[in-house]
Amino acid sequence: MVFKKFEELLALVDPKANKKTVALVRAEDDHALGAVAEVVEKGLIDAILIGNREAIKETAAHLGVNVRDEQILDAQTPEEAATEGVKLIREGKADFLMKGKLETAQMLRPVVNKETGLGKGKVMSHVALTEIPSYHKLVITTDGGMLPYPTLEQKKQIIENAVEVLHRLGYENPKVCVLAASETPNPKMPESMDGVALKEMNQKGELTGCIVEGPISFDLAMVKERSVTKGYESPCAGDADILLVPNVHAGNMLGKSLTEMAHAKMAGLIMGAKCPIVLTSRGSSEEEKFNSLILACIVSNK
Amino acid sequence: MVFKKFEELLALVDPKANKKTVALVRAEDDHALGAVAEVVEKGLIDAILIGNREAIKETAAHLGVNVRDEQILDAQTPEEAATEGVKLIREGKADFLMKGKLETAQMLRPVVNKETGLGKGKVMSHVALTEIPSYHKLVITTDGGMLPYPTLEQKKQIIENAVEVLHRLGYENPKVCVLAASETPNPKMPESMDGVALKEMNQKGELTGCIVEGPISFDLAMVKERSVTKGYESPCAGDADILLVPNVHAGNMLGKSLTEMAHAKMAGLIMGAKCPIVLTSRGSSEEEKFNSLILACIVSNK
Repeated sequence: MVFKKFEELLALVDPKANKKTVALVRAEDDHALGAVAEVVEKGLIDAILIGNREAIKETAAHLGVNVRDEQILDAQTPEEAATEGVKLIREGKADFLMKGKLETAQMLRPVVNKETGLGKGKVMSHVALTEIPSYHKLVITTDGGMLPYPTLEQKKQIIENAVEVLHRLGYENPKVCVLAASETPNPKMPESMDGVALKEMNQKGELTGCIVEGPISFDLAMVKERSVTKGYESPCAGDADILLVPNVHAGNMLGKSLTEMAHAKMAGLIMGAKCPIVLTSRGSSEEEKFNSLILACIVSNK
Repeated sequence: MVFKKFEELLALVDPKANKKTVALVRAEDDHALGAVAEVVEKGLIDAILIGNREAIKETAAHLGVNVRDEQILDAQTPEEAATEGVKLIREGKADFLMKGKLETAQMLRPVVNKETGLGKGKVMSHVALTEIPSYHKLVITTDGGMLPYPTLEQKKQIIENAVEVLHRLGYENPKVCVLAASETPNPKMPESMDGVALKEMNQKGELTGCIVEGPISFDLAMVKERSVTKGYESPCAGDADILLVPNVHAGNMLGKSLTEMAHAKMAGLIMGAKCPIVLTSRGSSEEEKFNSLILACIVSNK
C-alpha cells in the first residue's frame, strides 16, 4: 500500500473515534494560529493555545477566527510556553506540539531536557513527506537539517524515524534509498560507504521494518527507466519511499529544488521525541502547514 | 543579456563564417556517433572520427548515417584514440573533443599529460547548462563531479570555468550563487564559510567577470519571491546564472532532481582544458547530446 497524494491522508484522520489535540506553543503567531484554526474549524483536531492570552486573542481577532478562553493556556515567555507544551504532552493532555512565535532552539530546549523532556534516547530528525507531480507516490526526504552532518549511527536512527512515520501510515516495508552521487561503493567517499553499511545493517536485521538500498543515486532511486538502462537491479530502484540525504546541504538543495522547481508539496515533522513536532516556517505555504498538521495527527499516539 | 532556452543558442553557431570541427574519440559508439552525425548533417560542424575504421563504418551503417573514408582517423586502442584526439587539438585540426566508446579516465589521461596534454594549469570541471521550465533563464550547475570534494581554491577555479562559458555566450557579469543550506554564515560548516570567502574574493577583485553571492540557499538563489519574504537582498537573489554546489553528492542530487523531477534539459561540458570536452553518457538523451555539441561549438576557440 502506498499513498499518491496528500489528500488521501485525510481518510486516516478519524476525529469521531480518536480526535487528537495539538498544543500550539506561543500561539500569538498569525501563520501558525491560522493553520491550526483551519484544521480545528474542520472538526479534525482540538487545540490548546499556549502563550500570552491577550496577544493570542488579538491575533485571533485579526485573523477572524474564534478562540474560546478555555482553549488558552497562559504563558508569558517563549521558554515558559515551550515548557508548558512539553508538560501537556507528558500529562497526556495534548498529542503533539506545534511551534508558533518562538525560535526553534527555544522550542526544543524543554523537549530535549533529560529529566522533564520528551526524549526517547534517540536522535530527533526532520522528516519531510513530499508530493512530487512527476513521481508516482509520496516520498520522504530526511533529515531536513536537525543533524547537519550525521554519523553512521545517527543515519540509522534518522531512517528509523522516517520508517516510523510510514508505518503509522500503514506501510509495511518502506523502501529506503541512501543517496550518494553514484551506486558504486567508493571508499574515498564516506557518503557512499555509509550506504553500504546501512544496507548491511538492514540485511543483518539490525535495521528493521524496511528495505534499505545504498549507495544509490537520485535518478536510480526515483526513475525505474534509468535503472533499466543501467542494468541496475534493486527492489528499491525507481520506487523509493524514503530518501536519506548525506547532510544538511545536499538535503536542503534537494528539498528546495523539488518544492521550487518540480512543484512539489511538503509536509514536515520532527520525529524521535515522544510526540511529533510540527515546525513550519513563516515562508511555508498554507497547504504545507495544513498537511503537516494532518500528518502529525496521524503519526501521534493516543 | 540572457538566454531562456537552448534553441536560442543555435543563433550563435555560424558555420558559414566559422565552422568548428569536433574530434570524436573512439567513434565506434552508436550513441555518440549518432549525435555527431545529426549535427554534421545539419551542416553545423565538421567531424573527425577517431577509432577502428571498420568498427566505425559498421556503426555508421547500423545507424544509417554517411561516413566518408577521409573523415576517419584510424586508431586501434582507446589510449591511442584519445592521444590522437589531443594531438588534433594541439595541431589546430579540431576545435573540441567528444568522448565515444571509452572510459572517462582513458579519455582524460592524455588530456592532463603535463607535456603533451591540453592543461592550462587550472582545474578541469564539469559545467552543466540547464534549461528548467520553472526558471526564467538557463542556469549552470557546477561542478558535476570532476572534483568530488573541491577545496576553496578549486571552487574559485570551478567558478572561473563556468563564467568562461557564459562569457563566450555573451554574458558580461553572470551571477554566481555559492549554495549552502542557509544564507547565514556558519563557522561550523565549511560549505558556508567557502561562500563567504568566495564572495570576498569577488569583492576584492581576485575573482572577476562575475558577481558572487554566498552562502545562499537554493530557494533564495532561484526564487525572487522567497528572498522578498525573507527580507534578503542581493543582486543574485532569484536570478542566479551559476549555481556552485559544495560537492559531488549535493551536485548529483540537485542535477538529477532537476532533470528527472523538474523536467529540465541539460547540456554538459568539461572546461578548464585548452578546449571543451563533451562527455555525455549512454543514458543521456539525444537532445542532451545535441545541446552539448552545440554548446561546445560555441565555447571552443578558433
